[in-house]
Amino acid sequence: MAKYAIGLDFGTLSVRALLVDIHTGEEIAQSVYEYPHKVMETHLPTGEALPAAWALQDPQDYYDGLLTVVKGVLAPGKVLPEEIIGVGVDFTSATILPVYKDKTPLCQTEEFAHEPHAFVKLWKHHAAEEEAAYIDKVARERNESWLSMYGGKVSGEWTMPKVLEVFRKAPKVYEKADYFMEAMDWIIWKMTDTLTSSACSMGYKAFYHHETGFPSKEFFGALDPGFANVIEDKMNMPILPMGGKAGEICPEMASILGLKAGTPVATPIIDAHCSVPGGGVGKPGEMEIIMGTSSCHLMLADKEAHIEGIQGIVKDGIMPGYFGIEAGQCCVGDHFAWFVDNCVPESYASVAREKGISVHQYLSEKLQGYKAGASGLVALDWFNGVRSPLMDFDLNGLIIGMNLQTKPEDIYLALIEATAFGTRAIIENYEAAGVPVNSIILSGGIPSKNPLIVQIYTDILNRNIRVCASDQACALGAAILGIAAAPSEVTGYKDANEIAAKLAKLQDKVYTPNESQVSVYDQLYAEYKKLHDYFGKGGNDVMKHLNRIREANKTEA
Amino acid sequence: MAKYAIGLDFGTLSVRALLVDIHTGEEIAQSVYEYPHKVMETHLPTGEALPAAWALQDPQDYYDGLLTVVKGVLAPGKVLPEEIIGVGVDFTSATILPVYKDKTPLCQTEEFAHEPHAFVKLWKHHAAEEEAAYIDKVARERNESWLSMYGGKVSGEWTMPKVLEVFRKAPKVYEKADYFMEAMDWIIWKMTDTLTSSACSMGYKAFYHHETGFPSKEFFGALDPGFANVIEDKMNMPILPMGGKAGEICPEMASILGLKAGTPVATPIIDAHCSVPGGGVGKPGEMEIIMGTSSCHLMLADKEAHIEGIQGIVKDGIMPGYFGIEAGQCCVGDHFAWFVDNCVPESYASVAREKGISVHQYLSEKLQGYKAGASGLVALDWFNGVRSPLMDFDLNGLIIGMNLQTKPEDIYLALIEATAFGTRAIIENYEAAGVPVNSIILSGGIPSKNPLIVQIYTDILNRNIRVCASDQACALGAAILGIAAAPSEVTGYKDANEIAAKLAKLQDKVYTPNESQVSVYDQLYAEYKKLHDYFGKGGNDVMKHLNRIREANKTEA
Repeated sequence: MAKYAIGLDFGTLSVRALLVDIHTGEEIAQSVYEYPHKVMETHLPTGEALPAAWALQDPQDYYDGLLTVVKGVLAPGKVLPEEIIGVGVDFTSATILPVYKDKTPLCQTEEFAHEPHAFVKLWKHHAAEEEAAYIDKVARERNESWLSMYGGKVSGEWTMPKVLEVFRKAPKVYEKADYFMEAMDWIIWKMTDTLTSSACSMGYKAFYHHETGFPSKEFFGALDPGFANVIEDKMNMPILPMGGKAGEICPEMASILGLKAGTPVATPIIDAHCSVPGGGVGKPGEMEIIMGTSSCHLMLADKEAHIEGIQGIVKDGIMPGYFGIEAGQCCVGDHFAWFVDNCVPESYASVAREKGISVHQYLSEKLQGYKAGASGLVALDWFNGVRSPLMDFDLNGLIIGMNLQTKPEDIYLALIEATAFGTRAIIENYEAAGVPVNSIILSGGIPSKNPLIVQIYTDILNRNIRVCASDQACALGAAILGIAAAPSEVTGYKDANEIAAKLAKLQDKVYTPNESQVSVYDQLYAEYKKLHDYFGKGGNDVMKHLNRIREANKTEA
Repeated sequence: MAKYAIGLDFGTLSVRALLVDIHTGEEIAQSVYEYPHKVMETHLPTGEALPAAWALQDPQDYYDGLLTVVKGVLAPGKVLPEEIIGVGVDFTSATILPVYKDKTPLCQTEEFAHEPHAFVKLWKHHAAEEEAAYIDKVARERNESWLSMYGGKVSGEWTMPKVLEVFRKAPKVYEKADYFMEAMDWIIWKMTDTLTSSACSMGYKAFYHHETGFPSKEFFGALDPGFANVIEDKMNMPILPMGGKAGEICPEMASILGLKAGTPVATPIIDAHCSVPGGGVGKPGEMEIIMGTSSCHLMLADKEAHIEGIQGIVKDGIMPGYFGIEAGQCCVGDHFAWFVDNCVPESYASVAREKGISVHQYLSEKLQGYKAGASGLVALDWFNGVRSPLMDFDLNGLIIGMNLQTKPEDIYLALIEATAFGTRAIIENYEAAGVPVNSIILSGGIPSKNPLIVQIYTDILNRNIRVCASDQACALGAAILGIAAAPSEVTGYKDANEIAAKLAKLQDKVYTPNESQVSVYDQLYAEYKKLHDYFGKGGNDVMKHLNRIREANKTEA
């Protein structure tokens, strides 16, 4: 009998299901559902206005998406429900919602339908910066040991700042909620009727450590006496390692989804991290970079390491048996998209249209045969702040070196190079901490569509690079974890690492560094690094000053 | 009998004649001639390729232009030749050509028609940088006193580097030429058959001082023994103060031009400097800024002053009786044009087209009601290097503060502000040297067409500003000097200063600083100045490094 798994990839704007043959890796069917409410940044569905920096979602979108895409891959009838031996889930993370113990999100009750704090706070909700700074300050004062596992700085995108934000700003929501939970945990709970969480989301986003657990009651109490019991009272659920089973499809959902009751469902993983199994990374030495609107840099390591500016290092947090390390850049595809939307002249847009190619492709064509350094530009990739290694969202962009001969493609190239220089700064920190990066796998739409960008990364990072062959490395990774959730007797595989090595698909081409470009990029990187340290480490706080001036003089929208 | 004067304005790409009533200032007629050879930057008319940074012109274009535009203003027949009481000329400067003593330019002889060094080296010919640096070095070693009158640094755009370039690179041209002269002096010589030069061009561009004359033979000999007698041998002509007569229309040219023989022709003035009489500035305290592709900042002062980074301070160099001070910015309109040509998206261009306005106008519309600081950006206005105060053409552009919400109009605004900050840095140097700048007059196409830019300058400079009402302030200034070339008995005016005060036309509107914008701009200027000093004064030579890297890796065209 053929055997299949479903990977469910809950992204920022849509959920995708991928139905995969567990032995050949063949992608049998796909289905996508776009969230009708998208990201709510300006107002609630009921009309209430949201302040700047908010980013909410409606949990109903996840649930409706689940139903739609599972039915979507089953509908062609190529596969029987009993042939599906596992379901895996990846999801955005630190995407947090308050829920009653009957699984009802507070925002779905009449009482809280108009209360912004009752909705899902999406990963990129940035209104808890004040709480993050406060948590950071108190942790620093108390010399909390867990802080060093997170690059020494608390991000406002993480879980606890968002929960503290609700505690402070909407005490009634905090009081009434039985749980503050990851949306991924909520959807697994809905599917399996089993309440769990994962080493991945709790480890990377909520300060959980495999040996010491969460920060102490004393710590949370130092934030606010009423917040001391937040874990016990509001986040109390078993935390499972990656690569195993969270539960099984419950009978009610089996009939709704058209799956067999009892089908194993994997412990859910953060969407970006899912590109590790999806990219075939099952052991240390190889960095997986998922390049999307932002980039995530993921590694497996044999031992715990203290690395400046990482997002976290978590035992069993990505793949079983290893410490998983995460770093990230805030702004990669977003950066290029900003440029194309705002800075490319009409003449370029119209030639691209005539040629029937995208503006990105046209700019890349113009850069064919380019020589490193010929544009004379260097940029800082900080248009959306900096995650690793500076962890400072109060920084912004810089382009230097323009003259009157500077062309749009020169600036485009400089922005691409800037993101690669940013990655190089991250890799140098990994290696300085004793985690060697020997080669790199890129996944995501950008590298699969744009060989020029991959070659630029290859030359700037001076390492061999391979590219995921599937655009859907995350959904494939979720399917791989779905397979690993089933017993070995059923699948024939030892563990998730083995499945990943077998099923992930890479392009045949190995990108190798071009020596003449490498040596010029070494020079440009030295300039980048000097600017990076000057503007990023207190030499000149002009970016922060400009942000203050910008805020003080905001034009009313 | 009505009386008229003609102003001839020889710009970079065209010459214009303006026929003016000497009492009412009424502009009776205009005529323009565009140089067929424009600026030769890539090859000679005969096909010889030119290296990078060259910028030549063909003197025949000036002569043909002279004939065309003088006939052009006379053609309507409104004015009789004998009613024209004077002709004034302004011209680009350090625009140098080698000439035989029969007035024939060497490039017009068969022997030198293929020799680039025999052509007119236009002001923006930048291939003599090496010679400029060498002159600068030798002058510094010898502690030459004249150097401090030029802001302490020799520009490659000036006269002597260009003459030395010919001496070194084309010794035969140097040897055969009877004169190296300003194109303005050549055209006056053609018109009057009288060989002269002016305090303006020799003072600002060729190190001439009213008391000490040119640098010594010893100095020129220190550059090269064969160059010791350059002034005596190749530049030997009387140097006249501004505001008087250079000669009179000779009989031959009178018949060619249709003017009366004996008509006074004024001592010619540098085109930018001509905006001083054209803008009505006849006394100290008021700064005249002519904003074009680049900007020139001109002042009259009672006494000689040593000011960092100026282009020159010359007695009688602009208006009679005063020291004229010049400073400049390399890149103003060029800056905005670069942005509009390279960085404005299709959507903006198409809306502007629908509205029937220019992209500049559309961007300005988008900025209506803008608040200083709201964009969060600061730029350095160095896309074409820096004239005053740093005098360093090895610098380039910078924009800082971008995020993903940054709009094209934000960057456009930042570039405008950057040029105003650059002007503020210049003004601060004037005032530090004891030359107060109480108010400002702007002339040129940009301020007359764009009130937004004028208001930004008003707020950043925190001084009242008025704008020339005529687009043709230079041609009007030339006509004013043409009037001053005629005897007081004929004109009824005492001197050029009085004529300028009477005939210059300013817009009625006085722009006054908006206090709330001024205080924000003070903050932004502090950031600009810090970046200016860091990148411009050796804190971080990244711009120079990038220029070296760019040159070393130039993609073959």
